[in-house]
Amino acid sequence: MHVLILGADGYIGWPLYHYLRNKGHKVLGFDSYSKRDWERQCGAKPIGGGHGTQIHASTLDAGRLYAVFESFQPDAVVHLAEQPSAPFSMIDRSHAQLTVDNNIKGTLNVAMACARQQRTTGQPVHLVKLGSMGEYGTPKIPIEEGWLEVEHKGYKDRVLFPKKPGSIYHATKVADSTFLEMFCRIWGLAVTDLNQGVVWGHETDECPWGEQNRRVAFHFDEIFGTVVNRFCVQRALDCPTSIYGSGRQTRGFLHLRDSLRCIELAVTNPVEAGEFRVFNQLWDTLSIQEIADMVGGERKLVPNPRVEDREHLYAVTREALPALGFVGTPMSAQGLEAITNDFSKLFESFPQEVRLRIQIQLGDPKTMWRQE
Amino acid sequence: MHVLILGADGYIGWPLYHYLRNKGHKVLGFDSYSKRDWERQCGAKPIGGGHGTQIHASTLDAGRLYAVFESFQPDAVVHLAEQPSAPFSMIDRSHAQLTVDNNIKGTLNVAMACARQQRTTGQPVHLVKLGSMGEYGTPKIPIEEGWLEVEHKGYKDRVLFPKKPGSIYHATKVADSTFLEMFCRIWGLAVTDLNQGVVWGHETDECPWGEQNRRVAFHFDEIFGTVVNRFCVQRALDCPTSIYGSGRQTRGFLHLRDSLRCIELAVTNPVEAGEFRVFNQLWDTLSIQEIADMVGGERKLVPNPRVEDREHLYAVTREALPALGFVGTPMSAQGLEAITNDFSKLFESFPQEVRLRIQIQLGDPKTMWRQE
Repeated sequence: MHVLILGADGYIGWPLYHYLRNKGHKVLGFDSYSKRDWERQCGAKPIGGGHGTQIHASTLDAGRLYAVFESFQPDAVVHLAEQPSAPFSMIDRSHAQLTVDNNIKGTLNVAMACARQQRTTGQPVHLVKLGSMGEYGTPKIPIEEGWLEVEHKGYKDRVLFPKKPGSIYHATKVADSTFLEMFCRIWGLAVTDLNQGVVWGHETDECPWGEQNRRVAFHFDEIFGTVVNRFCVQRALDCPTSIYGSGRQTRGFLHLRDSLRCIELAVTNPVEAGEFRVFNQLWDTLSIQEIADMVGGERKLVPNPRVEDREHLYAVTREALPALGFVGTPMSAQGLEAITNDFSKLFESFPQEVRLRIQIQLGDPKTMWRQE
Repeated sequence: MHVLILGADGYIGWPLYHYLRNKGHKVLGFDSYSKRDWERQCGAKPIGGGHGTQIHASTLDAGRLYAVFESFQPDAVVHLAEQPSAPFSMIDRSHAQLTVDNNIKGTLNVAMACARQQRTTGQPVHLVKLGSMGEYGTPKIPIEEGWLEVEHKGYKDRVLFPKKPGSIYHATKVADSTFLEMFCRIWGLAVTDLNQGVVWGHETDECPWGEQNRRVAFHFDEIFGTVVNRFCVQRALDCPTSIYGSGRQTRGFLHLRDSLRCIELAVTNPVEAGEFRVFNQLWDTLSIQEIADMVGGERKLVPNPRVEDREHLYAVTREALPALGFVGTPMSAQGLEAITNDFSKLFESFPQEVRLRIQIQLGDPKTMWRQE
């Protein structure tokens, strides 16, 4: 299949590119490298990552985007080209607006490029869009896969699962889903929306940690780093793991390798024109405390910069991907120790100034989300 | 009360300004006049409208917006400053992107201006935001006022009513609601979201049709004109009323006078900090055919440029505004005849070139929404 990866320079996009190529697909990588600017601005450079993709362009440049579609004629488009950080979107007004631009307006262009090719060729282009489990928030009812069967006053309907985002980043992803479900209905687009849990892991088969030129963009800062990888790095550097708030927040998680496998399953099992399919893409559901337990070592409590429920239900349905054959890797103390050890070894090989930078990047959040 | 009206130059904003002033409020009008450019570009100039507001600025200019908040210190902000046309948003990619910019990014700035004043003064600023009944689409369950009590797998929750927009314009309003509900939760904003039906009418007490300098911006074209006013003008000019599709689409309606009254009720009955309140702001629910019957005269069937259900349930709850004392004016043949007659008389007084322009503006839609 011809697979276009938008955001091919990222933590998932880069190993996905190599993974899908290995599987025999014709893959084209597309990235604006904007995230590298954002990282620099935040002092949030990752270890690894950044080895180039074929097309250097932005989803905000519709002309370039349309030209890429015309020459490559993708069967599937994996859209990972969004500003991926909730904390980044909450820094201030300009970061919020940048996130709206990049995510909502970028996705609108991508949807239009798909509609355009579909109209020209008569064949659906399968748009596989990366969303987040965080879009759901923590409702008091179990979380279904994108849709909910509702009975109300004697009537029944299947409606989009009501979402409750907690950051501007998450709200843009909810808006993307609103737009894409509509385009399936009114333009006959074919979309799979992946509500992905928090991804963890420092390597994949094609991008092992030891291979410097292939190493994934591994973040551990408080802006782009996510909780599991960050805890592992804290442990590697003998810092206490930093638990925001109660630590009883429960979330969905999956390994980076599993993320690639899930995207592959979505791509190779396309939907029909007009269908808006949603997958909850996660394997484990764990509390932050449980993860800190697995990582081990000291811990410290940090005032929660986010506004989120201290205790809540978290009953998530994830049946669609397992029905296609997906079996995930459970998070384990051993799995996390491997990250910690590998990071630790690499860290020791770094010069003093790089070590200092990494230590600084492990600091606590500098802004509270309440402050607007 | 100090009431800031964003979008004070429009069909609703202009008479609202005079209405609220008459009621003794201190009112400040704010408008970018962008809509006048859009009208010119589409050849969709209204009769009436356009008499100036105090502050000529855009919600996209956060600096100016913040400065206006600082000097005026509004108790309530009525946000009508959105690109208001579904057909306009569906013309092409650039109109779609303009709608996203103006509506979502503009609303984000307005929300931030409210949060900023609230943080500085410790007092909530009540944001009254104009949404649309069209955001709900035509679900197979009765439409509640913004929220829905759900029971699922033995659990219960009160969730945002799932929406199903049919145009990019409507999708931006759904996104606005997503953002605003979140800001109530995480920043303690105080918001009333008005899901308004289709407004009809050519005058209010403060802005009678006969007073040229006060006359409301009355649209009858296929871009900014809405169905009732358009039918009345078609009747006035002895053109057949143009029914899109089956004509069995049922929608919510209210008179322009009633729209002002509802907004006043929202403003004078504010919510607490943290509350996201939704009103379904409509009086009648009628099918397009029923309206054509009331207008009388010939009719013609036009292929529906929109993708919408030919037949559907439309059971709408509208209890909140009546509970505050709102009693609407039912649409009637007499009420519509008054518009037709008044328009007809004015039309006869126009020079030939204006008459010709009006006749051209009554033409059928030029683009189909399916065509992207």
